Amino acid sequence: MLAAVLHAPHDVRVQERPDPRILTSGDAVVRVVAACVCGSDLWSYRGVNEVREPRPIGHELVGVVEELGAGVTSARVGDFVVLPFSLSCGECQACRAGFPSTCDRVTYFGSTDRDGLPVDGAQGERVRVPLAQHSMFGVGRPLDELESAGLVPHLLTLADVMSTGYHAAVSARVGPGDTVAVVGDGAVGLCGVVAAKLLGAERIVAMSRHADRAALARAFGATDVVAERGEEGVAALRDLLDGDLADAALECVGTAESMDQSFGVVRGGGRIGFVGVPHGPALSVERMFRRNITVGGGMASARRYMAELLDDVLSGAIQPGRVFDLELPLADVAEAYAAMDERRATKVLLQP
Amino acid sequence: MLAAVLHAPHDVRVQERPDPRILTSGDAVVRVVAACVCGSDLWSYRGVNEVREPRPIGHELVGVVEELGAGVTSARVGDFVVLPFSLSCGECQACRAGFPSTCDRVTYFGSTDRDGLPVDGAQGERVRVPLAQHSMFGVGRPLDELESAGLVPHLLTLADVMSTGYHAAVSARVGPGDTVAVVGDGAVGLCGVVAAKLLGAERIVAMSRHADRAALARAFGATDVVAERGEEGVAALRDLLDGDLADAALECVGTAESMDQSFGVVRGGGRIGFVGVPHGPALSVERMFRRNITVGGGMASARRYMAELLDDVLSGAIQPGRVFDLELPLADVAEAYAAMDERRATKVLLQP
Repeated sequence: MLAAVLHAPHDVRVQERPDPRILTSGDAVVRVVAACVCGSDLWSYRGVNEVREPRPIGHELVGVVEELGAGVTSARVGDFVVLPFSLSCGECQACRAGFPSTCDRVTYFGSTDRDGLPVDGAQGERVRVPLAQHSMFGVGRPLDELESAGLVPHLLTLADVMSTGYHAAVSARVGPGDTVAVVGDGAVGLCGVVAAKLLGAERIVAMSRHADRAALARAFGATDVVAERGEEGVAALRDLLDGDLADAALECVGTAESMDQSFGVVRGGGRIGFVGVPHGPALSVERMFRRNITVGGGMASARRYMAELLDDVLSGAIQPGRVFDLELPLADVAEAYAAMDERRATKVLLQP
Repeated sequence: MLAAVLHAPHDVRVQERPDPRILTSGDAVVRVVAACVCGSDLWSYRGVNEVREPRPIGHELVGVVEELGAGVTSARVGDFVVLPFSLSCGECQACRAGFPSTCDRVTYFGSTDRDGLPVDGAQGERVRVPLAQHSMFGVGRPLDELESAGLVPHLLTLADVMSTGYHAAVSARVGPGDTVAVVGDGAVGLCGVVAAKLLGAERIVAMSRHADRAALARAFGATDVVAERGEEGVAALRDLLDGDLADAALECVGTAESMDQSFGVVRGGGRIGFVGVPHGPALSVERMFRRNITVGGGMASARRYMAELLDDVLSGAIQPGRVFDLELPLADVAEAYAAMDERRATKVLLQP
């Protein structure tokens, strides 16, 4: 089969890879209907995360079940499924508590499983899915119906980006009437806007300095946009809020600057939900103590949120797939990465 | 009047100080009925926090209103009141949101107010109370009735220690059915046990290696005691919980070790409520991210919790005043500090 392989910084290629097959009774093989490129893939693509050897890449996909191990009874061949970016057992304490991304057996695409067996990347034609019994999320509708309703891109976001934006909002305990500042206008930040609105936020301030992203943020429910950053961004927010600050901030970048910005925009007793993969942010516990700022988040409980968000996606109440502003065939994966790296695209959908 | 003054590390004395008087229309003068020594006072007493010049000390008191500024209508002369360790305006955003300890005008005993006027320490015969309109909490019952019911020590804990233990539990979002580990067996940790039980925790593990404190923790509702620390403490907790970890931890010390211990004892997706004044703890955002650990807390919303906890104190449902294991006259303040410093006492009540 064909799949994307990252060879070195700025060198990602589609190439022939072994066809996945069932290796354990808990596996499934899924044919990829759509995949996409994540902001976190760019950390490796840019060489910020070291690339030691060529490796398959990608961790977001929807697809159709082609084969099932003997132990997998939660889906049937032919089912359309969403796969979360992290695979989980469903049985350990963290899974039972609703945090499958911290599962004792957590396994990632483009890596190896807990038995040391290779796991394909999501940017390819097919994947072996370990821990399939719990990890695969059946949508309950056939592919052709979903395709003709234009729902595939929206469902694909449940694999990671929408679930991650939602995790930011859930971790910041966004609720009815809240004023929420969203730090970061990438696809995750935009989905954070969707999530904040869904959870009842009254005022949603998107911190964005890209006109197209700001426009989508407004379409998603942002009531205000602040283009300034740092202290100027805080001042602009105060102006909007008659001197007040936000009840909650969604940190959707993962840098020291974005975490600092998040601290700056929340009131005493405020909450920060952080989902940007941390690259630099240091947390001052003194600062948290003095202002009673709560910080929570991390890798999203995608598998759990799929169930919570499915109805809203199927009904069209939320349309997070609008974050995809470029669709390319898998063969053009190099251009997909380049477009995101150069900010010519917010998020790219790949069709194998 | 007589009041305690900290002159230098290990040198605290009772001496004559000017009688407090009304300096602004928002002031009150309160006669101190009971005060106490806080674990956080020991940071200065031990010289960990620098002592640059002699200063009045103490921030926990209950008393009777003796005088009121023209602008204070929330109490009457003769009322028995509890004062929170931090004084607040009740009007700024943080106050309105229920976080008076991060008030825009927050003012502390033994310091100066926002007008630069001196504020007495609580370990003395009388105090001037700035921001009295919002800060003073009237108990609604006369002193003699409270004294004969033995309620004064319990009410005194609302000034700080019980409110702080409660803040740890609230910040860790302790709820019905939770398993909670309490890190620290000082007076705050013990009050954290009271709070966890009050909020419905099913299993409360006190991490204590002092037999007397462990016994009081059990009396307060701890279901288990773990004497080990570090990795051994985590292993002991896992043994108790059939391999599981706690849903929440209350960090009631403020050192790097206690924060690390708190991270160690909570499951993926767990919550840490921290109220120990930070002296050292660094927070690894990567660690929080990877395990989805939420960290919240800081200076307690004492003024708010007084209202929430008053009925339980008056009814005897909670008896947090049992943390006082030594009562001394104000004149013996040096012995009060020494006893706490040398761990001969958990918490000392002072009678002016």
